[in-house]
Amino acid sequence: MRTNTALKAWREGRPTVGAWLTANSAFNAESLAHVGFDWLCIDLQHGIVDYADAVTMLQAISTTEVVPLVRVPWNDPATIMKVLDAGASGVVVPLVNNGEEAARAVAACRYPPLGIRSSGPARARMVNGADYVEAANSEVACVVMIETAEALTRLDEILGTPGVDAAYIGPADLAFAIGLPGKGDNPHPRHLETVQTIVEACQRHGVAPGIHTNSVEYTQKYLDLGCLMVTLGSDTGFMTAKASADLKTVRSALPSTIDVDV
Amino acid sequence: MRTNTALKAWREGRPTVGAWLTANSAFNAESLAHVGFDWLCIDLQHGIVDYADAVTMLQAISTTEVVPLVRVPWNDPATIMKVLDAGASGVVVPLVNNGEEAARAVAACRYPPLGIRSSGPARARMVNGADYVEAANSEVACVVMIETAEALTRLDEILGTPGVDAAYIGPADLAFAIGLPGKGDNPHPRHLETVQTIVEACQRHGVAPGIHTNSVEYTQKYLDLGCLMVTLGSDTGFMTAKASADLKTVRSALPSTIDVDV
Amino acid sequence: MRTNTALKAWREGRPTVGAWLTANSAFNAESLAHVGFDWLCIDLQHGIVDYADAVTMLQAISTTEVVPLVRVPWNDPATIMKVLDAGASGVVVPLVNNGEEAARAVAACRYPPLGIRSSGPARARMVNGADYVEAANSEVACVVMIETAEALTRLDEILGTPGVDAAYIGPADLAFAIGLPGKGDNPHPRHLETVQTIVEACQRHGVAPGIHTNSVEYTQKYLDLGCLMVTLGSDTGFMTAKASADLKTVRSALPSTIDVDV
Amino acid sequence: MRTNTALKAWREGRPTVGAWLTANSAFNAESLAHVGFDWLCIDLQHGIVDYADAVTMLQAISTTEVVPLVRVPWNDPATIMKVLDAGASGVVVPLVNNGEEAARAVAACRYPPLGIRSSGPARARMVNGADYVEAANSEVACVVMIETAEALTRLDEILGTPGVDAAYIGPADLAFAIGLPGKGDNPHPRHLETVQTIVEACQRHGVAPGIHTNSVEYTQKYLDLGCLMVTLGSDTGFMTAKASADLKTVRSALPSTIDVDV
Amino acid sequence: MRTNTALKAWREGRPTVGAWLTANSAFNAESLAHVGFDWLCIDLQHGIVDYADAVTMLQAISTTEVVPLVRVPWNDPATIMKVLDAGASGVVVPLVNNGEEAARAVAACRYPPLGIRSSGPARARMVNGADYVEAANSEVACVVMIETAEALTRLDEILGTPGVDAAYIGPADLAFAIGLPGKGDNPHPRHLETVQTIVEACQRHGVAPGIHTNSVEYTQKYLDLGCLMVTLGSDTGFMTAKASADLKTVRSALPSTIDVDV
Amino acid sequence: MRTNTALKAWREGRPTVGAWLTANSAFNAESLAHVGFDWLCIDLQHGIVDYADAVTMLQAISTTEVVPLVRVPWNDPATIMKVLDAGASGVVVPLVNNGEEAARAVAACRYPPLGIRSSGPARARMVNGADYVEAANSEVACVVMIETAEALTRLDEILGTPGVDAAYIGPADLAFAIGLPGKGDNPHPRHLETVQTIVEACQRHGVAPGIHTNSVEYTQKYLDLGCLMVTLGSDTGFMTAKASADLKTVRSALPSTIDVDV
Repeated sequence: MRTNTALKAWREGRPTVGAWLTANSAFNAESLAHVGFDWLCIDLQHGIVDYADAVTMLQAISTTEVVPLVRVPWNDPATIMKVLDAGASGVVVPLVNNGEEAARAVAACRYPPLGIRSSGPARARMVNGADYVEAANSEVACVVMIETAEALTRLDEILGTPGVDAAYIGPADLAFAIGLPGKGDNPHPRHLETVQTIVEACQRHGVAPGIHTNSVEYTQKYLDLGCLMVTLGSDTGFMTAKASADLKTVRSALPSTIDVDV
Repeated sequence: MRTNTALKAWREGRPTVGAWLTANSAFNAESLAHVGFDWLCIDLQHGIVDYADAVTMLQAISTTEVVPLVRVPWNDPATIMKVLDAGASGVVVPLVNNGEEAARAVAACRYPPLGIRSSGPARARMVNGADYVEAANSEVACVVMIETAEALTRLDEILGTPGVDAAYIGPADLAFAIGLPGKGDNPHPRHLETVQTIVEACQRHGVAPGIHTNSVEYTQKYLDLGCLMVTLGSDTGFMTAKASADLKTVRSALPSTIDVDV
Repeated sequence: MRTNTALKAWREGRPTVGAWLTANSAFNAESLAHVGFDWLCIDLQHGIVDYADAVTMLQAISTTEVVPLVRVPWNDPATIMKVLDAGASGVVVPLVNNGEEAARAVAACRYPPLGIRSSGPARARMVNGADYVEAANSEVACVVMIETAEALTRLDEILGTPGVDAAYIGPADLAFAIGLPGKGDNPHPRHLETVQTIVEACQRHGVAPGIHTNSVEYTQKYLDLGCLMVTLGSDTGFMTAKASADLKTVRSALPSTIDVDV
Repeated sequence: MRTNTALKAWREGRPTVGAWLTANSAFNAESLAHVGFDWLCIDLQHGIVDYADAVTMLQAISTTEVVPLVRVPWNDPATIMKVLDAGASGVVVPLVNNGEEAARAVAACRYPPLGIRSSGPARARMVNGADYVEAANSEVACVVMIETAEALTRLDEILGTPGVDAAYIGPADLAFAIGLPGKGDNPHPRHLETVQTIVEACQRHGVAPGIHTNSVEYTQKYLDLGCLMVTLGSDTGFMTAKASADLKTVRSALPSTIDVDV
Repeated sequence: MRTNTALKAWREGRPTVGAWLTANSAFNAESLAHVGFDWLCIDLQHGIVDYADAVTMLQAISTTEVVPLVRVPWNDPATIMKVLDAGASGVVVPLVNNGEEAARAVAACRYPPLGIRSSGPARARMVNGADYVEAANSEVACVVMIETAEALTRLDEILGTPGVDAAYIGPADLAFAIGLPGKGDNPHPRHLETVQTIVEACQRHGVAPGIHTNSVEYTQKYLDLGCLMVTLGSDTGFMTAKASADLKTVRSALPSTIDVDV
Repeated sequence: MRTNTALKAWREGRPTVGAWLTANSAFNAESLAHVGFDWLCIDLQHGIVDYADAVTMLQAISTTEVVPLVRVPWNDPATIMKVLDAGASGVVVPLVNNGEEAARAVAACRYPPLGIRSSGPARARMVNGADYVEAANSEVACVVMIETAEALTRLDEILGTPGVDAAYIGPADLAFAIGLPGKGDNPHPRHLETVQTIVEACQRHGVAPGIHTNSVEYTQKYLDLGCLMVTLGSDTGFMTAKASADLKTVRSALPSTIDVDV
């Protein structure tokens, strides 16, 4: 069984930096895999990626040593099992509100007797090794998202659930949860304070804290806070940020161009 | 018939800045279309994009006012006609060596009696207007690439071919053509000199000069030279440049991370 | 934020006519968008369309001003959120039985504090404007389907649910619900009576009544009844109806042709 | 309405042999359809196949008389209805634990008043005949999977549920359920005994017993036990088994080849 | 070897009526196949269909007895051979100008010694029978298009080429060829006269005459002229014609609707 | 630059065994890559695979160390360059008749000054290393096919062309070329003799001889003859051979089953 190097880092308290894949493009995925992130997470929740796309993206990531994760659209056992069968080394499960839901997410990630995962690792065994079914329970990462008001009142319950490997904060939803506008990379003091509370709770429970960002600034800020699973940005975000900045530089020095109304 | 705003700018001597689409992703295309480029060029030659992908990308670009171009893999009438039918506002034809080849490219872009384009504008009429067949000959851009040794000896022949709207330099192939290593954004004096020669020939013939770059620096340099059709970069290029730079920044401040060998 | 013109019409009591997209073809979608319907609804329930297809179809519809709707397969928050993120201006939710289920559908369409929609409008923000997250709650249409026996006993409960913008009748399922064979464009008096009952209940609650048809005749009949969201037909339905009628005309005048057994 | 020949065989107590489709390839599907299996089952649970793939595979199978089945990822009415609308002649529903869940699976397969299936047989009517909605309830096969510990304690409850046509054993999950490692083609006596218990329960209830295998040996063994729906192997399984065996034969006689580390 | 019923009809002097497939949708193809046309032609020239789409469409047509044809983008042996390998029962080759080009088209359709077709009927053998390689030369239809000015001066040369089964007129290109605007269903007397000339030449050479139309009127007119291979319309054409007509009817009776600018 | 291990073996006179990919399935490709072949060849000529499929299959193969080759549909520089850009380590070029055509194939595989390959290794550089453009000329394999009557008269001309790395025999076309029915794995003495002639010519010119087979028997026979690039079989061939054999075994022992007419 191939080692899940991201999960290993979290268990050893070492930070990891990854990126988010929101476009349905295996070429984007393969290109970012060659950039050197610790893991890449294919977004089936908010991106425009579907399961069939995810399979090609998982194959593209497997051309490198980068750890492939998938954020599923919902805490749904069928989808969690299916992306694991396709070769994801872990799942990120959104909107986990309480211990029961955390346990439901974990159960879908683990073969019996630990969980209810059904046997049939179509691509996962091919990629990870012939002993996959025996070894997967300890190498598949179960990452729950902490981002709702209810979850904030049940942190210990969620983080104390056996099998939860990491807790990933969705900062925009978290902002909603504490009565702020739904915005990530959030400078509001109450937001930062809430993030700190979650990180500390994670540390108490031996769970790796993680969070989404769209910038170097917030990545560094959260790494400094102790987050071990930090997203630096997304495929599309990197692309449009660079293109916009460079185009602005070029346009500003141009006397006159055609006006494109987008 | 919808006006080809890029072609109009070239005819009026105004510069345009565009980007290259190398990934088979309509979402990348749509995202870059919203960045504000004058045109986007779908690469069927060197990218990993196929015709079916190009159709979805043309649709994605059509959600904005950005002008969609396609670089075809070869000076092949069937492919040129087919991408125009799918809604491209112009084609970029690689490796044009002489006047005869330039005329062949033009002929594929024009309905009779000017050319040999076959009638059947499946998507082009829908997107551009009911009078498409009548008006297309003056709104479809035919861009020939100047990038081979033979072409350098036949510049006037190529650029004097009626119907050639722009001449686009492939700088890496041009480097090969003058005996240098195949590299774009090329600082070699002989390379720059060759580019200048081509630009001046274009200006003599009333053809818009264009060139490919991967940077603000070279975009500005070539705009200063008089190029009217300059590529600032590509989808994948923007994405990986930004991701690499930001990741490097973050990594440099990190004590220890997992080592991913890519 | 781009105005949802269909939703605006319903709020102002003006009728709208749309079409249903059942084939997984962005070219069909774009072609019908150019016909001039007020809205097009991509069918993820009974059609053969999958989410990845829907994304390309949403892009195709966005090349025009037509309002894109999606019928989801089930009253499932994850799918509702995901199609909205992909740029649907509203969802049609099948088989809503009671007020609780109506509230569940609405909640998935609204950001907190009105609902539980998670923040991440990948394509929706690009298409609708930078203020999407702030403005979406009032521009995204939530359309519940009334088509089950239980729903008929709970019309006021469903239609009184805050946030329900329209109620769309599935006439074949409605036929089942009242003990008739499952057939749309249904001439049975009890069917018409039931439709009238639902329309009147909608009018009482300020909810736009809507219904599916496959013909001009029933479209006109239901518009006369006061329906504000009427489907005239589907991509495949239009195509095969015209092809069958024309082929029959041609065949009837032909002396002898080959017999194709289909 | 086209006859479901597999279902007819089960009702008449005649055995059928089929194969599993785990790769997202309509060409694989069509190729295996021409091999002469009684039915082919597209796996949406463990394979890497998505709904859009399944539609093309269903079309490919429809070029022959072979009966197309689909294993859905979960006992979820929306998915069951959607694959039936796409032309599946039956569904295999995994992880059915008790009578209530069996009834839920059946209900999704049957139009009212027998079930809750929503009317809209997009492709199914085209393939099976104009009377599809009237006749489908007796021609669509509902196959429940018996593979969990709970199900073993509720066999009579599950198999006694009206509308259950067959019970299909997932042998690897069944191994988990009785405390063995998760392995199919399982020689453990307790495994065989459990299979026998299920087969006998099926026979008591007039339900066709079925089981998954990966070999001639186990196919024959289970046919001898009375199983009427036996899977001989999968697309990918057949392919890699033959390729591995033949390559091994060839390699063993070769003096020296390059070493490929896979 | 399955009989090519369209080719058989042409050989026996019986007319056939078909339809054109311009959208990349196997569901459109399957739906039209069930309408009862003698043949369907997948358009790889002007449609937005690519080879990969064509394969799925060929599979969809093979669910019926309808004869599948493919119009290739160009008189290119590689493409002709590849669509035949994928199961097309014949090809329509555009823009054939003279006898040499006609012979080139024929050669690509025939195995040696008659032609140069390479052996490898991946899907064709599966669909047509194990004796495909032996029998294909007499069952594969080679249809050349007559639509250029040069072709009009070389009708006997083209039509006298051994192996040409039918000659299909592209009426819009033909209009160009005789100095008229590029329009099909063309009422100009000179256009009709030219069509007649071609039909008579076909009859002289025992080649089946064919032509493209978009209407019942022109289909009947050309059948009356003796055309044996007449296209009644296209998938998208049928769809939008019916949708536009019906929508116009409905709109005309509506007091006020929203204005959608398309 | 990653070493082309297949090419290296041929240069050192060591035999290699590979397989052919004819289905458009990246999962098939990945599965066969794990079986342990020295190389896999994606068939764009006779298979049903298109370029877009090939890209995903190349990515799938890149998850292992197996060498990816592509057979192009025709000796066409544009296609050869494009599949190399997508990451193929070599191309197999069909129907090469003479030295001029061999030189044309080689030129498309080599950057100037050796050839005319255009610079733009979109995916190839990512997969093979940053020095790809500098090193590719000596690591990309150019394999020409010997299978026509003309080629048999010009063996020395073809095999003496600088840059030809291997010569691959298409046995069915070769049978045509010598007046036999088009059949591979061909026992006819004249066929074997012709193969021997080609192999010896290859050995004289230091070109690796190769050939296609569908069986262990012919693989061994040709390895014994000195072939260094032997195809053992294809994805679909392995699959259907095993499925047919196993099904036959099972059926023969079954008393009565349903009859499926395929």
